[in-house]
Amino acid sequence: MATRRQALLLSSSNCHGFSLLEFAKKEMCDFLTKNNVSELLFVPYAQKDYDAYTSKMQDVIEPWGFTVTGLHSYPDVIGTVNSSKAIFVGGGNTFLLLKTLYEQDLVSLIKKKVDEGSLVYIGSSAGTNVATKSIHTTNDMPIIYPPSFEAIGIVPFNVNPHYIETEHETHKGETRDQRILEYLEMGHASPVLGLREGCILHVNGYQLTIKGIAGAVLFNVGDIRPRHYDVGSDMSFLCDQIKEVE
Amino acid sequence: MATRRQALLLSSSNCHGFSLLEFAKKEMCDFLTKNNVSELLFVPYAQKDYDAYTSKMQDVIEPWGFTVTGLHSYPDVIGTVNSSKAIFVGGGNTFLLLKTLYEQDLVSLIKKKVDEGSLVYIGSSAGTNVATKSIHTTNDMPIIYPPSFEAIGIVPFNVNPHYIETEHETHKGETRDQRILEYLEMGHASPVLGLREGCILHVNGYQLTIKGIAGAVLFNVGDIRPRHYDVGSDMSFLCDQIKEVE
Repeated sequence: MATRRQALLLSSSNCHGFSLLEFAKKEMCDFLTKNNVSELLFVPYAQKDYDAYTSKMQDVIEPWGFTVTGLHSYPDVIGTVNSSKAIFVGGGNTFLLLKTLYEQDLVSLIKKKVDEGSLVYIGSSAGTNVATKSIHTTNDMPIIYPPSFEAIGIVPFNVNPHYIETEHETHKGETRDQRILEYLEMGHASPVLGLREGCILHVNGYQLTIKGIAGAVLFNVGDIRPRHYDVGSDMSFLCDQIKEVE
Repeated sequence: MATRRQALLLSSSNCHGFSLLEFAKKEMCDFLTKNNVSELLFVPYAQKDYDAYTSKMQDVIEPWGFTVTGLHSYPDVIGTVNSSKAIFVGGGNTFLLLKTLYEQDLVSLIKKKVDEGSLVYIGSSAGTNVATKSIHTTNDMPIIYPPSFEAIGIVPFNVNPHYIETEHETHKGETRDQRILEYLEMGHASPVLGLREGCILHVNGYQLTIKGIAGAVLFNVGDIRPRHYDVGSDMSFLCDQIKEVE
């Protein structure tokens, strides 16, 4: 049976030339409307001030016609996720976010509900990182120690959000590409999809499509040349492995 | 009893305008000579190819008049560290380095030997990160999961190597300063010393001095303004806490 997994994975909530989430407004609205969602549960765990972060998102998303509430404002976190139709996991620090998701016993619950089609997932930046196989390819500083780097696994590969080719003329720190290749050299089997700022990965069952206003770059195991994919590209081949298993 | 802890913590081995380690040659030679060291044990664990990495360091350091051997080339790792007078822990990926140091049971052994004055420590980039309180403020990608972020703790605070003020006009990823402040907001008690490329922190007992060709920037808990320190600055106040405890 084909599952009706639904996710929208944003590279970031900010994009040059746009106000907060503005570049993603049409995709988010279409996505929520098609999934009959009118209430969005916001997960603010990637930042310190849950109230301020939720309020910022409410100011942007509620005028679009959706109700937004913060998960932290409910006494029963598990029950609230269980009874929700859609969550939006915001960006911030990926380590802090994943640690809190584990502390709240939400990692496997979210995966189960998304896989069975009873929960629609939107993620941005850190919220996109935790939706993938692992957080091994986050750009964030490891400010806190999570119990694992393995994440929710809505897609069976890794993402690098805020992807950008970095060339330093005078600074000698590693470039982004060097860092991603270091990850692949560790013997991890999963590829890494770099999402440029403005890029959105749409997960519809096992169909993956690049949406938004910027493309993606795929780093594959055993292939040192990154491959570029424009908006509109079908990335479903990245799910072939998972489909065969199920 | 005052210990004779001796360490030289380099921000990086590469610095714009210099060949590998060239900017640090005089400091490293003076440091090793003063400590009566003629043989340097190189720890290549932060990179994948131990032989190639060790060979690269031999090519640079042996012409200075010191013998360099790779720790990986000895069958008895613990015994080799125990009988060595000086180690140089090279840069690469901090997560890979710390994980391997834990696997080889070297974290507490190196701390004990440096604290008692029987082992002289040189670190560069990742090798500097692991010499500090923790690796929470590395810039590296978390390509592998170490059993802890706590590190050797030769100094009782954190370092950010390759420190640079980053200002993005069009890219929306966090700046370096934002990332370090996120760390401090977690409630960690220890400050973060950002070492600019070319900066060397000299540890002489409990006396700390900024050496090399570039300064450092201190981020303190409860103080949002970073403080700049030039080459020659005495940073011993950062050890006051540890001295009082002992």
